[in-house]
Amino acid sequence: MSFGSGRHLLYIGFMEFKGTDILSAKQFNRGDIEFVLKTAQKFEKFALKEKRSDILAGKVLGSLFYEPSTRTRFSFETAMKRLGGDVVTAVGAEFSSISKGETLEDTGRVISSYADVIVMRHPHVGSTAQLADGATVPVLNAGDGTGEHPTQGFLDLFTIQKECGKIDGLTVAFVGDLKRYRAVHSLAEMLTHFNVSFVFVSPPEMKMDSAFIFKLKEKGIAFRETTRMEDALAVADVVYMTRIPKEYFSDPAEYEKFKGVYVLQRSMIENNKPNAVIMHPLPRIDEITRDVDTLPGAAYFRQTQNGVTVRMTLLSLVLGARI
Amino acid sequence: MSFGSGRHLLYIGFMEFKGTDILSAKQFNRGDIEFVLKTAQKFEKFALKEKRSDILAGKVLGSLFYEPSTRTRFSFETAMKRLGGDVVTAVGAEFSSISKGETLEDTGRVISSYADVIVMRHPHVGSTAQLADGATVPVLNAGDGTGEHPTQGFLDLFTIQKECGKIDGLTVAFVGDLKRYRAVHSLAEMLTHFNVSFVFVSPPEMKMDSAFIFKLKEKGIAFRETTRMEDALAVADVVYMTRIPKEYFSDPAEYEKFKGVYVLQRSMIENNKPNAVIMHPLPRIDEITRDVDTLPGAAYFRQTQNGVTVRMTLLSLVLGARI
Amino acid sequence: MSFGSGRHLLYIGFMEFKGTDILSAKQFNRGDIEFVLKTAQKFEKFALKEKRSDILAGKVLGSLFYEPSTRTRFSFETAMKRLGGDVVTAVGAEFSSISKGETLEDTGRVISSYADVIVMRHPHVGSTAQLADGATVPVLNAGDGTGEHPTQGFLDLFTIQKECGKIDGLTVAFVGDLKRYRAVHSLAEMLTHFNVSFVFVSPPEMKMDSAFIFKLKEKGIAFRETTRMEDALAVADVVYMTRIPKEYFSDPAEYEKFKGVYVLQRSMIENNKPNAVIMHPLPRIDEITRDVDTLPGAAYFRQTQNGVTVRMTLLSLVLGARI
Repeated sequence: MSFGSGRHLLYIGFMEFKGTDILSAKQFNRGDIEFVLKTAQKFEKFALKEKRSDILAGKVLGSLFYEPSTRTRFSFETAMKRLGGDVVTAVGAEFSSISKGETLEDTGRVISSYADVIVMRHPHVGSTAQLADGATVPVLNAGDGTGEHPTQGFLDLFTIQKECGKIDGLTVAFVGDLKRYRAVHSLAEMLTHFNVSFVFVSPPEMKMDSAFIFKLKEKGIAFRETTRMEDALAVADVVYMTRIPKEYFSDPAEYEKFKGVYVLQRSMIENNKPNAVIMHPLPRIDEITRDVDTLPGAAYFRQTQNGVTVRMTLLSLVLGARI
Repeated sequence: MSFGSGRHLLYIGFMEFKGTDILSAKQFNRGDIEFVLKTAQKFEKFALKEKRSDILAGKVLGSLFYEPSTRTRFSFETAMKRLGGDVVTAVGAEFSSISKGETLEDTGRVISSYADVIVMRHPHVGSTAQLADGATVPVLNAGDGTGEHPTQGFLDLFTIQKECGKIDGLTVAFVGDLKRYRAVHSLAEMLTHFNVSFVFVSPPEMKMDSAFIFKLKEKGIAFRETTRMEDALAVADVVYMTRIPKEYFSDPAEYEKFKGVYVLQRSMIENNKPNAVIMHPLPRIDEITRDVDTLPGAAYFRQTQNGVTVRMTLLSLVLGARI
Repeated sequence: MSFGSGRHLLYIGFMEFKGTDILSAKQFNRGDIEFVLKTAQKFEKFALKEKRSDILAGKVLGSLFYEPSTRTRFSFETAMKRLGGDVVTAVGAEFSSISKGETLEDTGRVISSYADVIVMRHPHVGSTAQLADGATVPVLNAGDGTGEHPTQGFLDLFTIQKECGKIDGLTVAFVGDLKRYRAVHSLAEMLTHFNVSFVFVSPPEMKMDSAFIFKLKEKGIAFRETTRMEDALAVADVVYMTRIPKEYFSDPAEYEKFKGVYVLQRSMIENNKPNAVIMHPLPRIDEITRDVDTLPGAAYFRQTQNGVTVRMTLLSLVLGARI
């Protein structure tokens, strides 16, 4: 499927999502996002294993994880299967020996012969859009290098809305490697359509992209950049922690320098805003200590569960299936 | 799910199995084992492809094989699918790049968001119990290093009962690396609840665990330890052969020394007890010569088939599904 | 299942295919091939996602790809799933650590305990026949090293018939590494049952097998061997391009020498036979330039789609399922 970058899709109902690629958070305006979040509520009981559905029976998802990711892959595949659909999967090292130099456009076209919809994780920015250029079925970006992870953006927003009861009016803090963490990019982008304030906490080397900061200024959105997590905890309704992603460091010494910089402990929340919602795309290593897990605001495992709900929603929307 | 080690579960019916982890042969007493074996008989026709069932429709198995094992994995996944269930799978090398330092408890909790039941193979003793600590769905141990392999124990017992018509009164010989072979550990443990005699045949370096031998003495169970296979063949109703597991030797020369020590040939059976039941968890390399395959007592391929039957049974029991 | 090499199966109806292995193009005579092609027409609408069927419900395909191949694997697995069947899969590196020295006969017997039908890709010639010797369910060869790829042969023939409306009377050119390309071997073998002329275009080091050339002479089939692609384009109704398979060269310099030898460009077709049908088993690297893709005769992506149709047909035939 083709995709005009920056295009805004004003959805009235589900028909307009049918056949659409989901490649970037930039595709969607507030109306689109609210439509997805509202639709997702209808899918929650299926993700929570409370009800069964067969609305995707006869549909096949092509699950292409050039870079392995059990979490995201299981989330998509479970979403497909719990709605009666099926999946063909290829993971990791398998590709290096297979692609044999084929272009991603050709791969997209070939996989479209087999699948009704494709989800793809790939180490290179823009790879998903390239595959989508050749594909004749909808393509969902499940992370393209340090680029985007739009379905994670949707599930994070869904989590914020569920945990806080609203999105407008919130102060949202992001903590960690904001330069390379694609989940942060997609969520922050989507949040610009809402009335929120940002706090960005990172080492100077890992700041949010300057183009995004410029956009916030241009749109008059309140934000603060800091290296101190304390500044965020004092004000944030939502604290979005991230892992310092070891796989992006070529120098292990460099990684060691950063990995313990931001560690969220129970007392930090209790001494600031005890009801703050704490999120994390997982896996966590030691950015959040275990004693935080039992706080009422510790939402990261519920966030994972919401991933199934939101991916059910997006798969159904692009396939034109209505619950 | 949590699991109290050594706990005995006295099952009256299927409800008590629902939600239970299956981590160790030590969990089960004679009543439990007999209940599983009796229930398994009802599942046999489905495993033998004679009948179809959908009792697990809508259920998803999370199949986590940190250490690859096509046999055991296919056995579980086939069991799930032939009862109408579905599977999400992750295998081997995929994990090293994925786990990124996450604890097994976190992994268990996350996978519980996707799956209704988890089966796990892992190279470390105790790993499955760790995953189960975080999981909120039942976890089945499909082999944790040199630890246990309880579902193999059940299928081996089921095979003995089917082949011999009984378990009580039998002499069961184990041959090979008894120190590190987890299938042996789980089956031998379960057999202590029956009126059997043991013969343990191994090199001195690969003897049964001394704690288990102590337990046999304490319970007054007859056994003999020997290095000569001949001693076993003269008396055993069941001969359980094992592979000398190459993967557990760091020194290849050490492996070469042991690998040809015990080789079962057709004449050895014919000259001793011609109706002896011969078992092997497979794969066999050269511990059993091909001419043995056509003996009536050569049960190892039927044993594999019984694996599907018994895993159908256990998956259904922990999921609370009744045939 | 056992398979007598060179055996001809004269099929009247579908019953005779039931339980048969599909290991080599040499198994089939003209009547067999025409029966498969005719049956395939009935399956096309299911492969094209226009209709759904459940004729393989309750059946499990064991998909064993010792050598990874996403395309062929997805083609088989999609075929199975779109007819209501299910799949258990093992790929690539997984095997090296699993087989642990087991014979392929044993593997075939064990996998038969789980699956109703097996498809296998393996790097060694004859491996599939070896597995089939032990198996008790039908085995389909999805490529055994430089040996054969008979299901590819069927789908290529199906493509020729669909694109040209006939097979008899055509001139078919094969271009590339004809020595080692198994898809060429299987298709060329099947074409000998029809009234066709061959043109073989290859470097001298990569000529068709001399035994096959001898057979053509013996049967009085017209053919020409040449190193110049131009000779073929002037006369061929069907141009079957192949990749120079890098993985078969131990010396990279040797590969570099050959890889750009045959490159098909749009003008070459337009200046010769503009309606020529262009085929390629994919992936293509640079043997066919992108501008060819929009020619009406560019059939390689339709060829991929036909793969699902033909594999649906063959799976159903060997399983005795009738649409």
